[in-house]
Amino acid sequence: MKYLLLIFFMNLLPQCAGKSLSRDGSYPKTFEGIRNEIAGYNDIAKAIIDLAVYGKAQNRSYERLAVFADTIGPRLSGSKNLDAAIKYMYSALQKDGLENVHLEPVKVPHWERGEEFAMMLEPRNHSIGILGLGSSVATPPEGITAEVIVVASFDELHRRAQEAKGKIVVYNQPFISYGETVRYRSLGAVEAAKVGAVASLIRSVASFSIHSPHTGWQDYQSGIPQIPTACISVEDAEMMSRMSFRGTKIVVYLKMGARTYPDSTSFNTVAEIVGSKYPEQIVLVSGHLDSWDVGQGAMDDGGGAFISWEALSLIKDLGLRPKRTLRLVLWTGEEQGGIGAEQYYQLHKENISNFDIVMESDEGTFKPSGLAFTGNAKARDIVKEIMALLLPINVTEVYDAADGTDINFWMRDGVPGASLRDDLSKYFWFHHSQGDTMTVQDPNQMNLCAAVWTVVSYIIADMEEMLPR
Amino acid sequence: MKYLLLIFFMNLLPQCAGKSLSRDGSYPKTFEGIRNEIAGYNDIAKAIIDLAVYGKAQNRSYERLAVFADTIGPRLSGSKNLDAAIKYMYSALQKDGLENVHLEPVKVPHWERGEEFAMMLEPRNHSIGILGLGSSVATPPEGITAEVIVVASFDELHRRAQEAKGKIVVYNQPFISYGETVRYRSLGAVEAAKVGAVASLIRSVASFSIHSPHTGWQDYQSGIPQIPTACISVEDAEMMSRMSFRGTKIVVYLKMGARTYPDSTSFNTVAEIVGSKYPEQIVLVSGHLDSWDVGQGAMDDGGGAFISWEALSLIKDLGLRPKRTLRLVLWTGEEQGGIGAEQYYQLHKENISNFDIVMESDEGTFKPSGLAFTGNAKARDIVKEIMALLLPINVTEVYDAADGTDINFWMRDGVPGASLRDDLSKYFWFHHSQGDTMTVQDPNQMNLCAAVWTVVSYIIADMEEMLPR
Repeated sequence: MKYLLLIFFMNLLPQCAGKSLSRDGSYPKTFEGIRNEIAGYNDIAKAIIDLAVYGKAQNRSYERLAVFADTIGPRLSGSKNLDAAIKYMYSALQKDGLENVHLEPVKVPHWERGEEFAMMLEPRNHSIGILGLGSSVATPPEGITAEVIVVASFDELHRRAQEAKGKIVVYNQPFISYGETVRYRSLGAVEAAKVGAVASLIRSVASFSIHSPHTGWQDYQSGIPQIPTACISVEDAEMMSRMSFRGTKIVVYLKMGARTYPDSTSFNTVAEIVGSKYPEQIVLVSGHLDSWDVGQGAMDDGGGAFISWEALSLIKDLGLRPKRTLRLVLWTGEEQGGIGAEQYYQLHKENISNFDIVMESDEGTFKPSGLAFTGNAKARDIVKEIMALLLPINVTEVYDAADGTDINFWMRDGVPGASLRDDLSKYFWFHHSQGDTMTVQDPNQMNLCAAVWTVVSYIIADMEEMLPR
Repeated sequence: MKYLLLIFFMNLLPQCAGKSLSRDGSYPKTFEGIRNEIAGYNDIAKAIIDLAVYGKAQNRSYERLAVFADTIGPRLSGSKNLDAAIKYMYSALQKDGLENVHLEPVKVPHWERGEEFAMMLEPRNHSIGILGLGSSVATPPEGITAEVIVVASFDELHRRAQEAKGKIVVYNQPFISYGETVRYRSLGAVEAAKVGAVASLIRSVASFSIHSPHTGWQDYQSGIPQIPTACISVEDAEMMSRMSFRGTKIVVYLKMGARTYPDSTSFNTVAEIVGSKYPEQIVLVSGHLDSWDVGQGAMDDGGGAFISWEALSLIKDLGLRPKRTLRLVLWTGEEQGGIGAEQYYQLHKENISNFDIVMESDEGTFKPSGLAFTGNAKARDIVKEIMALLLPINVTEVYDAADGTDINFWMRDGVPGASLRDDLSKYFWFHHSQGDTMTVQDPNQMNLCAAVWTVVSYIIADMEEMLPR
């Protein structure tokens, strides 16, 4: 997940609330009626849970993901791997017997890190592990050798602006939360360039580290010189901070061969179970297929993509066909800021009144605890009733504010949204690092996530009425 | 810590028990008398705790270690860094005002990993993170390209011996415990070579991983071809195992530039507080100064070495001088199997009856829970009484079987031994990896470890009688 857009849109949500379609007045059923309707899905919910968690489909999303992730590897926008991933999924979704399997073309950024290398030259030789940040420029071919200034915050950088000229800024900001801390990754280069620095090295935005740098997208600003920028490990950032605090002079050699190519064509990958009664109405479940270029993208967002696919597979396996169309979208270009999702929104927004709910899982598929939901009070009450059917696996919580770079476009305009909530305690240990591999995934946890995702999407797609907004 | 010797010696202990000096018969005091004597140290124990944990010496061992580890970096036997570390400590111990600061020369192995690189070529290009194992030979200059056979155990390798010829054996053994699992690292190359393999890649002996390979020593056997061998990450081992299980052909290119040089001269580093009444009798506290060549060796065994130094510093700061000599030994060549410690034993064993207790901390300096002790029942009762004085910091447990590659030589011959016990839950996340840095150390935890170490060593050094054996 990218997260930056998320923060942006969450700030917008209060202002935009007024823009949403309000159907509350015209909603036909009493809440008692709705409650009875939802209670009627009890057996189906149980059948979904049984199939996903204990039955024949047990571990399927995990196993499918393992084959996919092992075969394709990481899938950065613009890469051949992402092309291969889309081709693979197109074929797999067809083989799975889903309907309307198709690709919707999107222009996505194409950045490659190339060779990169950092070495501390003073006070001692020490190889610094780095991961260049997406969109970073390269160093000159001979690299950059410069003294380091270590700061713990943008405030400190601004206070010590005079010292930063011609230096490499090392940020050793503490990890508070991803949302709070990620601005150092996104804006570190810009802020360092403003005070005349020649490069920036940023402590990885990670809540725990075994010497593992984490990459991610960063943004230049027009009019500000573009300097090379990379993340370093928590350990190296702390070490340089200690050295600097002791007054030790630090000199670092940095070489990055990153290149930005013209935008390349990619695709959102779509498949459906077409609705039996209101086929034009859409319940959208999704995850993003692109990833960073390290690890296997098994967590971010292989898990979300594959439990979304699993939701359609489980419904098909049970011979169910909801009244509304259940649409799976595997987004492209999420890591560059929801590029695929924005285009999808632009293309399909004229149909917005037919979008019942948009769902995205992009914050891990660890042990689930419930659902985060964005929508009005009546819709929330309905979702709470649905979640009560997940009592057999004890995943009944409904939290505020759904997350997801790719669904925010719709939620901003009033479409109800949901995202999976799970145990995030280790998410930022692996996020955007070489550690994002199948080893972090647990088949039982993915089964539970798939059950939640399926029960919610199926019932919303099959109820008499769309969710009120 | 190396651990292999430890296992070896623990097996020997029962047979050797009879060789130890037995003084039980002649031990002069009643246990009641001893209990009273130890109770008399209550105020000193409190003073030590106050100084180490709450007072002026708070965080000193951590801060000293941070400066040392940041300045020197990793310290493999035979390296310039280890020479620098010994020089550094020699000077620091003198500056600290300790007595008889001196170096005892030892010939240690000198192995260097050189450049190393592994790449999966089939089924897809994937860079495999490796750490060559200590004593491994190099590949030919052009590297080795071979198909992989993945096994989960030596048993499986032996069953499938016919398939292994000419291949690279990948071990994906589960982590059971370090003691149980480390034999794959030590013997993996030998067992693979016996069945005609051209190299071995071994899943790191780690209880958790963020794509971090762990190194360590390995042993060739005479008459068995020496093949190159390295550890890979848990993640890559698991991935290759999944691929192999699916029948996917895996081809790996391996290049290692490791070299073994002639043994080089190193030193055990020694400092003392000379005893006031029985200066010839020795209480030995220790950790090892050498480390692996990755990370900073801050945990293995920077922490153990620096709380041992701290014990002498705290006693000096309090103006105490025990009746017996308190001797600090910072071993060299531990990671190659206690090379420095063995030579020390050979040189000093004629004085064995004067060694009261040998103590080593080499299993982390995380939150301490007590002391592991090797010795007879009466000695154990005495140690329990001493540990009761650590109730203010709640570190009073006495466990069986002290650990420590460097002190086993003495314990085998009946000298009582003690090692620190602490929270090991994360120890094997970092052990012998790039993750062994100051970031894993916590100053408060080190304060507590130092307090335990000091109270025990001081009281044993100052009691009227040596521990019974």
